[in-house]
Amino acid sequence: MSKQAIGVVGLAVMGRNLALNIESRGHAVSVYNRSRAKTDELIAEFPDRKLVPAFTLEEFVDSLEKPRRILMMVKAGEPTDATIASLKPLLEKGDILIDGGNTPFTDTIRRNQELAKAGLHFIGTGVSGGEEGALKGPSIMPGGQRDAYDLVAPILTEIAAKAPDGEPCVAYMGPDGAGHFVKMVHNGIEYGDMQLIAESYAVLKQVVGLSNEELGKVYTEWNQGELDSYLIEITSKIFSKKDDETGKDLVDVILDRAAQKGTGKWTSQNALDLGAPLPLITEAVFARVLSSLKTQRVAASKVLEGPRAKPLEGAKEAFIESVRRALYFSKVISYAQGFAQLRAASEEYKWDLDYGTIAKIFRAGCIIRARFLQKITDAYTKDKALANLLLDPYFRDIAKNYQAALREVVVAAVNAGVPVPAFASAIAYFDAYRSERLPANLVQAQRDFFGAHTFERIDKPGSFHAQWS
Amino acid sequence: MSKQAIGVVGLAVMGRNLALNIESRGHAVSVYNRSRAKTDELIAEFPDRKLVPAFTLEEFVDSLEKPRRILMMVKAGEPTDATIASLKPLLEKGDILIDGGNTPFTDTIRRNQELAKAGLHFIGTGVSGGEEGALKGPSIMPGGQRDAYDLVAPILTEIAAKAPDGEPCVAYMGPDGAGHFVKMVHNGIEYGDMQLIAESYAVLKQVVGLSNEELGKVYTEWNQGELDSYLIEITSKIFSKKDDETGKDLVDVILDRAAQKGTGKWTSQNALDLGAPLPLITEAVFARVLSSLKTQRVAASKVLEGPRAKPLEGAKEAFIESVRRALYFSKVISYAQGFAQLRAASEEYKWDLDYGTIAKIFRAGCIIRARFLQKITDAYTKDKALANLLLDPYFRDIAKNYQAALREVVVAAVNAGVPVPAFASAIAYFDAYRSERLPANLVQAQRDFFGAHTFERIDKPGSFHAQWS
Repeated sequence: MSKQAIGVVGLAVMGRNLALNIESRGHAVSVYNRSRAKTDELIAEFPDRKLVPAFTLEEFVDSLEKPRRILMMVKAGEPTDATIASLKPLLEKGDILIDGGNTPFTDTIRRNQELAKAGLHFIGTGVSGGEEGALKGPSIMPGGQRDAYDLVAPILTEIAAKAPDGEPCVAYMGPDGAGHFVKMVHNGIEYGDMQLIAESYAVLKQVVGLSNEELGKVYTEWNQGELDSYLIEITSKIFSKKDDETGKDLVDVILDRAAQKGTGKWTSQNALDLGAPLPLITEAVFARVLSSLKTQRVAASKVLEGPRAKPLEGAKEAFIESVRRALYFSKVISYAQGFAQLRAASEEYKWDLDYGTIAKIFRAGCIIRARFLQKITDAYTKDKALANLLLDPYFRDIAKNYQAALREVVVAAVNAGVPVPAFASAIAYFDAYRSERLPANLVQAQRDFFGAHTFERIDKPGSFHAQWS
Repeated sequence: MSKQAIGVVGLAVMGRNLALNIESRGHAVSVYNRSRAKTDELIAEFPDRKLVPAFTLEEFVDSLEKPRRILMMVKAGEPTDATIASLKPLLEKGDILIDGGNTPFTDTIRRNQELAKAGLHFIGTGVSGGEEGALKGPSIMPGGQRDAYDLVAPILTEIAAKAPDGEPCVAYMGPDGAGHFVKMVHNGIEYGDMQLIAESYAVLKQVVGLSNEELGKVYTEWNQGELDSYLIEITSKIFSKKDDETGKDLVDVILDRAAQKGTGKWTSQNALDLGAPLPLITEAVFARVLSSLKTQRVAASKVLEGPRAKPLEGAKEAFIESVRRALYFSKVISYAQGFAQLRAASEEYKWDLDYGTIAKIFRAGCIIRARFLQKITDAYTKDKALANLLLDPYFRDIAKNYQAALREVVVAAVNAGVPVPAFASAIAYFDAYRSERLPANLVQAQRDFFGAHTFERIDKPGSFHAQWS
């Protein structure tokens, strides 16, 4: 019997779609699921595809070419550890386990090290694009042993999304947890993007007074320019969707309580650990949390008054353009923070991440795919050591030309009582980052005053303590 | 030989000062340090005090009345575990170990549970007030077994700071990690307070153009009113301090790079875990991190231009009063977030925290001591179930009367290019919290569009999914 080049363990929607994707590129794929029903269903639904079912792990492992390539698509955490423990005794040196789940990168580092002791390769890979991406072409962010990656690269390259220029959206990220780390930051950036769009929506609706129809048109138009991206595209479509039941615009029927699955939170927590400033994404995470306190908000809305909304002064069109610029510049600031976090992580965990390549593989397949990612790749191609995206000439020009619009929108929102935590955080970060002198000297004076924590001086190196009282 | 009612392990500055504090209340205190030198020094420096040195842990434990009360003032982490491991075999059922270090509350929960199995009591206590507080009267936040607390309460009450009304700043916080948790949030709040003051300084200096002398006067005046607090008091003094070497104002000689010891970071990370919105304190933590990137900021300041500072329009005095109001209202918002985090923690960890009492014991001894804490105690005395401080009538009035000033200051700072991340985050939180409807409906629509994550409806319960395309 011929053996398969790859097998998939875990046939929930992501695993099943990845198996179908791989098969569609001409590979027979071994498939296994802990409970037999899912395997039977898959085979019954696609009887003509080259999916080779296995009903025990032994059978599954035995059906694979050596070195074995096993893609695990199981739940992160305990189930992943359990699957690894079951597979481990059946594997041989040089076999390659791939974890395509939504795994914290610290778990991936641990598993990579543990399995390396047994001579097994372990690749932790981010897979972005949801169900449809998995089926038709996701963005893939693999990390682990470089030589193991080379052995799975051909298949991953085939199944990955293709950027507009035809390049596949997959690349080796770095050792051990690098792939899952990049995926985590991708998701954090996604939180930031979504919150910024939500704030632009709030301002356009509450300050400018646009209807859903007008909003749909604005986002459609924005999607033709530098904001061209998947999230702006779906936003433009959302405003024209009707509710089947009531006939109202569906967006107005949806409850304003945003859920989350934790990766945004991880990104913020890691940024705090690394000492990498990530205020915008963190405001986005907290904004979701605050939105979920609906009952409290409704009660508060009855007793906490704000300013009366005033009709917009000046031209509507000009202000809408300001909102567009505010959104684009804030997005730039958010990515500047996210990529600075990648840089801090690369140094901390010794990963040697290639930021230009990371931006490149985000260009298709994943949720944050956008035209402007090319600008990030360009920036790092010109200067691999770039400390912050805002220092690159293209983004510097955006800052120069668009900051007035961002200030204008924040001011209008603050005066109108419309919450714009991410916009406001963006301009605060920009102004702090470009401040030669911040008021942190006062903070250090206070710390030395009450706790003798010492301070540094501007005129010479060293630590100093003053007798304050 | 008579035995002592309490002993202190670890004679670095905090342990030594607490020992001296206890002794000053008329108790003989056993003292022990791992390296003998510190013990010898202490005894040599204070030969007439009732400090009873021990040079082995056996001797130390044997010198104590039963049940033994042992206050550990050793480094958090590994050294604390090591000290516990050394003491444990020497102790008997009912003995009480007190950890007064700067310990993450999760460690305290673990240690409390482990020691309970051996019949030992474990109290984790926050001690705030620095070296001087330890010596003269700190604010003390103990958590652990209630009956164990009762056995140490008399001594803790004696050594604690006394509030203006004479009440001691110590109270039982709750089981296991409650004490160290409250101390952590105290420190997070301290980060927020310090950042807000730093932003008020930046605005007064850069927007209003005040000199250090004028700044000193402003903070001195503010300290007479509702902002009356230790941090405002020391701020007012900082501006008149001269540098011994150069004769310049010391505050201008201090490098604007703020350091931190991690408790602010823990507070933010825990808030993210609890799903308790804590954006202001988190902005403060990130502001310190960003301040530390001095080299990058200096480079950025040369290429990233901002608005030209315009002279303040209108009356200086009126704007200074607006800054005062902005500072006070932002402080209220920060405490509202911090106390909401305490509430979320109390539910999550089943602590039954008493928020009014917590505010009470912050009134003296600790860094955030302030007149306005009485208002928090009053609010929770009136309504123990208060969901958010902003809903209390006193704070509602502050919100009503001061929000215009906060908006004015944020607008002025944003227009002038002065970074005010905490002020801006404060008004965004306030406006979001009082929003019956946030744009999170769009976020849910997007999540359902790209990931079939479903959404809730405003008109009926349940989870729904739409066919978007």
